[in-house]
Amino acid sequence: MFRESIQQMTGYVPGEQPRGTKLVKLNTNENPYPPSPKVVAAIRAAADSGLQRYPDPQATAFRMRAAEVLKTHNAEITPDWILCGNGSDDILTIVTRTFVDQGKSVRYPWPTYMLYKTLAEIQGVRHEAVPCEPDWTIGYELTAPSPDLQLVYLANPNSPSGTLLAPGEVAAIADALECPVLVDEAYVDFAETNCLDLVRTNERVLVSRTLSKSYGLAGLRFGYVVAQPDVIAQLAKVKDSYNCDTLSIAGATAAIDDQAWLADNVAKVLAERQRLDAGLQAAGFVTTPSSANFVWATHPSGQHQAIYESLKESGVLVRWIKHHGWAGGDDGLRFSVGTPEQTDVLLSLLATC
Amino acid sequence: MFRESIQQMTGYVPGEQPRGTKLVKLNTNENPYPPSPKVVAAIRAAADSGLQRYPDPQATAFRMRAAEVLKTHNAEITPDWILCGNGSDDILTIVTRTFVDQGKSVRYPWPTYMLYKTLAEIQGVRHEAVPCEPDWTIGYELTAPSPDLQLVYLANPNSPSGTLLAPGEVAAIADALECPVLVDEAYVDFAETNCLDLVRTNERVLVSRTLSKSYGLAGLRFGYVVAQPDVIAQLAKVKDSYNCDTLSIAGATAAIDDQAWLADNVAKVLAERQRLDAGLQAAGFVTTPSSANFVWATHPSGQHQAIYESLKESGVLVRWIKHHGWAGGDDGLRFSVGTPEQTDVLLSLLATC
Repeated sequence: MFRESIQQMTGYVPGEQPRGTKLVKLNTNENPYPPSPKVVAAIRAAADSGLQRYPDPQATAFRMRAAEVLKTHNAEITPDWILCGNGSDDILTIVTRTFVDQGKSVRYPWPTYMLYKTLAEIQGVRHEAVPCEPDWTIGYELTAPSPDLQLVYLANPNSPSGTLLAPGEVAAIADALECPVLVDEAYVDFAETNCLDLVRTNERVLVSRTLSKSYGLAGLRFGYVVAQPDVIAQLAKVKDSYNCDTLSIAGATAAIDDQAWLADNVAKVLAERQRLDAGLQAAGFVTTPSSANFVWATHPSGQHQAIYESLKESGVLVRWIKHHGWAGGDDGLRFSVGTPEQTDVLLSLLATC
Repeated sequence: MFRESIQQMTGYVPGEQPRGTKLVKLNTNENPYPPSPKVVAAIRAAADSGLQRYPDPQATAFRMRAAEVLKTHNAEITPDWILCGNGSDDILTIVTRTFVDQGKSVRYPWPTYMLYKTLAEIQGVRHEAVPCEPDWTIGYELTAPSPDLQLVYLANPNSPSGTLLAPGEVAAIADALECPVLVDEAYVDFAETNCLDLVRTNERVLVSRTLSKSYGLAGLRFGYVVAQPDVIAQLAKVKDSYNCDTLSIAGATAAIDDQAWLADNVAKVLAERQRLDAGLQAAGFVTTPSSANFVWATHPSGQHQAIYESLKESGVLVRWIKHHGWAGGDDGLRFSVGTPEQTDVLLSLLATC
């Protein structure tokens, strides 16, 4: 009754999302601060104006404001370079379905965001996980020619490492490939550089963004992709007509409009990232310099599971991530950047565990 | 660069959604009334409680409340028989991807909801549109054996006709098929019967619902599917982890909880449907008895396009639907049920056009 590829796959397992508890939650890279008050006000106004009508299928208000904002970040784009999604997971699904035929293949550096593998399995395509070096650098294997290769996913900054490729490095990868590359910039607002500029010069580069992390809106489900208009036109055929709802379009438009809130929030997160990194090192961890809102850390003892469980028992949830067989180590811990108070709780527990 | 099936398809064209106009909008079967005030209150509370956290991936609150409500409608189900989606379009996509392999086929009676064809094209599968009789009855061809057939879509009530198959008729179709059948009950709250009971006795029956029509929540994007737990488990692998957002889960839970609002709203719509149908007949149309919140009508003059355009010019938007080559006629007009005032405007215009 079911497609074989569906029946055989295990399905993506998102980070634990316990409800109604007082846990210090540092496991899924949520922003520790609530969104801009202007977002809440916009949502309230949209709710009051009646929800009986379908939303704008093109989320025009968001795309217009986003194009203006991105211009101030040196990206010369107009609204027709943007397609909105129900979170950037929706964007990743749309991109996969637009480019990859059943029986063909996708590729990604590994370890990375494990959803890429799941997306390939759902689509019924092969997935080539190209191992990074132990220091997370990416080798030439990522761009090795392959007749079946139809899409490369490139999380930048990467998760769980937090490492960042410079735009020139991404451009070199894109130029060496014959297929499109989806640069997943979910965490880019916490980084020094981004790849929006590459979209203009290479039609095979797509850049996806989300409001889940830097805008404090994981609960809203809103993401977008920037690509050349001819590419956007094909992606638009694959998305659900009304994939973004009235409330999320209103909230997302208010969010991207409030760049002062973003700058303030990012500054707070970056300051705390530095303190978290230093504290983890003081607790004996080896950390990877991060360009995102989390820090990847391994402990010489290798007791990552025990540390994860001990922290959880004490009310602090972090992410224990396994990548069995990787030359850089079988597993480690990813700590989302929280509030100063949350960092204090975490570090004091680590001092005793 | 693109999959051939994507490049060749035209893409689904939703009904016109003009922004910021004073049109009488009777073209996309939206509810003419805003949702329950309890929905708006729930959304405001959810927005205030912070959106920085991811939503519940399983929309547990909705599923628990929905299972209780559906039990009062004689459906003996528990929350694990329900999967939620970002509108029932998301459900239709998930179901298609779970059951239909590239190169295989889907089938549906025709004319019907044109998204089914689009879903097949996106998935890269063949679509067999089985023509209804001119009186909209469905022939045996729908259940003819085919080795490649992997899914049948059955809108019930159907659109654009508004016609309803009794549960016994749907059961007979499901029993005659070897593949799953998705009974799309988007409009069922306006009908006398539903097919929820069939899910219990036949694991190949899935029933989808939406809050867009009868709950006045087209702008919220929330739908769900009822199926046996083993089926739900496979569908869950295909959906985006966080396909429903915090606000829509809160709003949808409040909506299904307010059954008194639903009963009152449905009573108003049914009364107005009767008046609309009578008024259209008085204006010279031939109408099809409807079990939904719209009326399908044809005019002996065949001037459907001219009537549509004339109405639009006067500020009333209805749906002109073409199904070229169908024995029941090449086209016609679908009128959504509006408020009494909207019906008055429509009927007075039709009297003069």
